[in-house]
Amino acid sequence: MNIRHFLSTQDCTRPELDELLAQAARYKRDKLGRDLAGRAIALLFFNPSMRTRSSFEIGTWQLGGHAVVLAPGKDAWGIEFEPRKVMDGEAEEHVAEVARVLSRYCDLIGVRAFPKFVDWAVDREDLVIKAFARHATVPVINLETITHPCQELAHAMAMRERLGELRGRKYVLTWTYHPKALNTAVANSALLIATRMGMDVTLLCPTPEYVLDERYMAAGRSNASENGGSLRVSHDIDEAYRDAEVVYAKSWGALPYFGRWEAEKPIREQHRHFIVDEAKMALTRDGIFSHCLPLRRNIKATDGVMDAPYCFAIDEAENRLHVQKAVMARLLAWNSPT
Amino acid sequence: MNIRHFLSTQDCTRPELDELLAQAARYKRDKLGRDLAGRAIALLFFNPSMRTRSSFEIGTWQLGGHAVVLAPGKDAWGIEFEPRKVMDGEAEEHVAEVARVLSRYCDLIGVRAFPKFVDWAVDREDLVIKAFARHATVPVINLETITHPCQELAHAMAMRERLGELRGRKYVLTWTYHPKALNTAVANSALLIATRMGMDVTLLCPTPEYVLDERYMAAGRSNASENGGSLRVSHDIDEAYRDAEVVYAKSWGALPYFGRWEAEKPIREQHRHFIVDEAKMALTRDGIFSHCLPLRRNIKATDGVMDAPYCFAIDEAENRLHVQKAVMARLLAWNSPT
Amino acid sequence: MNIRHFLSTQDCTRPELDELLAQAARYKRDKLGRDLAGRAIALLFFNPSMRTRSSFEIGTWQLGGHAVVLAPGKDAWGIEFEPRKVMDGEAEEHVAEVARVLSRYCDLIGVRAFPKFVDWAVDREDLVIKAFARHATVPVINLETITHPCQELAHAMAMRERLGELRGRKYVLTWTYHPKALNTAVANSALLIATRMGMDVTLLCPTPEYVLDERYMAAGRSNASENGGSLRVSHDIDEAYRDAEVVYAKSWGALPYFGRWEAEKPIREQHRHFIVDEAKMALTRDGIFSHCLPLRRNIKATDGVMDAPYCFAIDEAENRLHVQKAVMARLLAWNSPT
Repeated sequence: MNIRHFLSTQDCTRPELDELLAQAARYKRDKLGRDLAGRAIALLFFNPSMRTRSSFEIGTWQLGGHAVVLAPGKDAWGIEFEPRKVMDGEAEEHVAEVARVLSRYCDLIGVRAFPKFVDWAVDREDLVIKAFARHATVPVINLETITHPCQELAHAMAMRERLGELRGRKYVLTWTYHPKALNTAVANSALLIATRMGMDVTLLCPTPEYVLDERYMAAGRSNASENGGSLRVSHDIDEAYRDAEVVYAKSWGALPYFGRWEAEKPIREQHRHFIVDEAKMALTRDGIFSHCLPLRRNIKATDGVMDAPYCFAIDEAENRLHVQKAVMARLLAWNSPT
Repeated sequence: MNIRHFLSTQDCTRPELDELLAQAARYKRDKLGRDLAGRAIALLFFNPSMRTRSSFEIGTWQLGGHAVVLAPGKDAWGIEFEPRKVMDGEAEEHVAEVARVLSRYCDLIGVRAFPKFVDWAVDREDLVIKAFARHATVPVINLETITHPCQELAHAMAMRERLGELRGRKYVLTWTYHPKALNTAVANSALLIATRMGMDVTLLCPTPEYVLDERYMAAGRSNASENGGSLRVSHDIDEAYRDAEVVYAKSWGALPYFGRWEAEKPIREQHRHFIVDEAKMALTRDGIFSHCLPLRRNIKATDGVMDAPYCFAIDEAENRLHVQKAVMARLLAWNSPT
Repeated sequence: MNIRHFLSTQDCTRPELDELLAQAARYKRDKLGRDLAGRAIALLFFNPSMRTRSSFEIGTWQLGGHAVVLAPGKDAWGIEFEPRKVMDGEAEEHVAEVARVLSRYCDLIGVRAFPKFVDWAVDREDLVIKAFARHATVPVINLETITHPCQELAHAMAMRERLGELRGRKYVLTWTYHPKALNTAVANSALLIATRMGMDVTLLCPTPEYVLDERYMAAGRSNASENGGSLRVSHDIDEAYRDAEVVYAKSWGALPYFGRWEAEKPIREQHRHFIVDEAKMALTRDGIFSHCLPLRRNIKATDGVMDAPYCFAIDEAENRLHVQKAVMARLLAWNSPT
């Protein structure tokens, strides 16, 4: 059994990504359909969700399917992911059983599993969703782990809606302050998708310690060279914003301090001025702005930016609905015997 | 954009209320339909719910729609409601984004947000649902905040089923003891709807401190004068029950002690005898009895009262289903471009 | 009103059980249908659930119905079960109201309510689900209390799929170690259904203290004599496994220590070797193995056993979906006026 999952946009060819975006655009024009008629998806949330859960649940229903939402360790049993474990701890069952049983009830399984934030060497292996993918007999969809591929598609779709062709556009991914050290998933994903679209990408962050994992930097450089774009790092706010056509903001914790956040905290606190504000946006070339949400106003971006016509965060969030319907429908098609 | 929400029955004309009740009666006769076909509602619960959640979810489904249930701060992110806030506290996102994003996924948004019970001057502004209404681009429905308009409709419908024309009927809203200081929402709502129906309303409570907020007392007097009824306050149990045709019970905390419940507790404890029992009901003129539920038996009303044929609390609870379907369907109609 | 509930397989005749299994087999072949069109079920979970909740929710939907999931005391109000209680404790409403209101919204009510694990004399009365059955005006389904009849049907269905006729087959229910003292529900149920199917049943447990409640032992003996099988107890692992055709594993706490688990703990710890492993399975006559799940790997059964072709736990879990659809459809038929 060789199942096609949706764990990363890197697993899709560029034509497949374009196919997903085209399908999403069709769903945006015509929201109801039968492409998931009689199909069920299990949505497993190990972390909170507002947009992902709402848009998957509603999107599935709009296409004739049904989503069941489970929170393992809360309303469902705690799950063990380590192979060959003598399970005398807290977990009541093993992912081997959970994934196989849900595969009998459902046609698709979605999993949100953020890092544990203790050891990046462990978290970067993305063991939870990989275990689901290994044991499931139906396609598994990444609802955000250490990347967030559904957000990538929604982001690309929204940028295209505003800008048309993305190749060669100047794109800035800017780090912002946040009181907690957050997941790098959306930052990793922003690099992946912007380089995939052939954009000229600048990763703006306070210091070299905030550069993302080399896995994503390398993938970004490779994507850029294959798709006619570029990827570089900058620590100079003015220089990075100047002439930018897209500004995308995200906060994340510095990987060298992963799990030792009290040590990173004073460093992070020095960079509150990375907030996206109207003065910075004025440096851009009529730049548009977005963030994946949730966003703390006046911490990551000012009210003025969030409420400006150039902010497309709400459009991007809406597009989650459309792209995810496309992901579900295409995944089933890609996995159906022809 | 001038959206018609359902935040209070006071925002509806009397003919509109009658229209809602008529539609509800049709849904009671014929429960399945397509009036919400393809429509989705987000139900946001900041507080527990049994009836509201079940009846909205099932009612939406019975009319061809879908309800997604969210618990912000639990399964979804915590939400900030204060405008212009520098969001460095617990909330991860602002209602401005939540309301706008859900408006893209859904056709309706329902919100349950009880008071915080710290400062009535703040709670009486009903900021949570007003913020949703301000930012949403779809109609917002009040699932109980400081009033409970869906309960009002269910209550009016159930009284009509038992009594026919309500104008001039003697109606008693009686305070009862409860171990905790509860929300005044249903008490406020009982005053509003009973006076709206032109009933002769007595608010029975232990002392003047338990009289409801003057906003609702004034609205009740105004409703009464417009609809041929009356509103008065009594602290005399026997006098209030005598010849009553409807007794409606609710417990609430005394507003002068709002947030200082330890000070109110000994006062409240002296009035346990406000419990609705068979002796009191015997004073009425074949009076019928109800309560919005949940109800603590033998604290607010005796088993004998709850199980008596004159108790219509279960009918009223059932009617939640029917009236809410009417609210959803009419709200969409009222907001649709003609 | 004389409602037919589904609280125990013992309330069904053998032809009715066969009818349920036949209907389940039809649903397994053809999963979509309209047998629950327009019907709603409330699923009340007082305890966690993965399989039960997913399979009921999806199964209801596959037949055109809708399931609403409630967690009393969490997202819904806490419920009192004691009759005539002066409700000044934690519970906000009484099962009398909850059951009657849900009966107005729904066509079926499912209840999961594990023992409280304080006093077996209380827990064995199964008061929660009995209270629902007493007050509801629609059929009530047992989602696991002190028995687990839905699991029984799934188990019987899966055994028949593997073995065909079950009468006279050698069946071993083996106790296993678990770090916590668990519910006896599935063990009780395994005895009931295996004896009902006329199997030669051995209850294997470490000591006489682990024998199940005499109510289930007696029912098992009675079932066996009526259906051509047998029931005996063994404390000898090798002897019990030898020539077994089915091994079913479950852990449970010893009833004499009920609620005093610290006293039972050292006894239980001595019997970790009851784990189902390949050496034990090798003693069987090509025996097949199952467990109701959730299962702690390498505590209750080894990886080798769980991943062996003779393990049918996943098939049994799948069958939950099919049998429960049959239970819902048949219950409505059994209760419909003819």
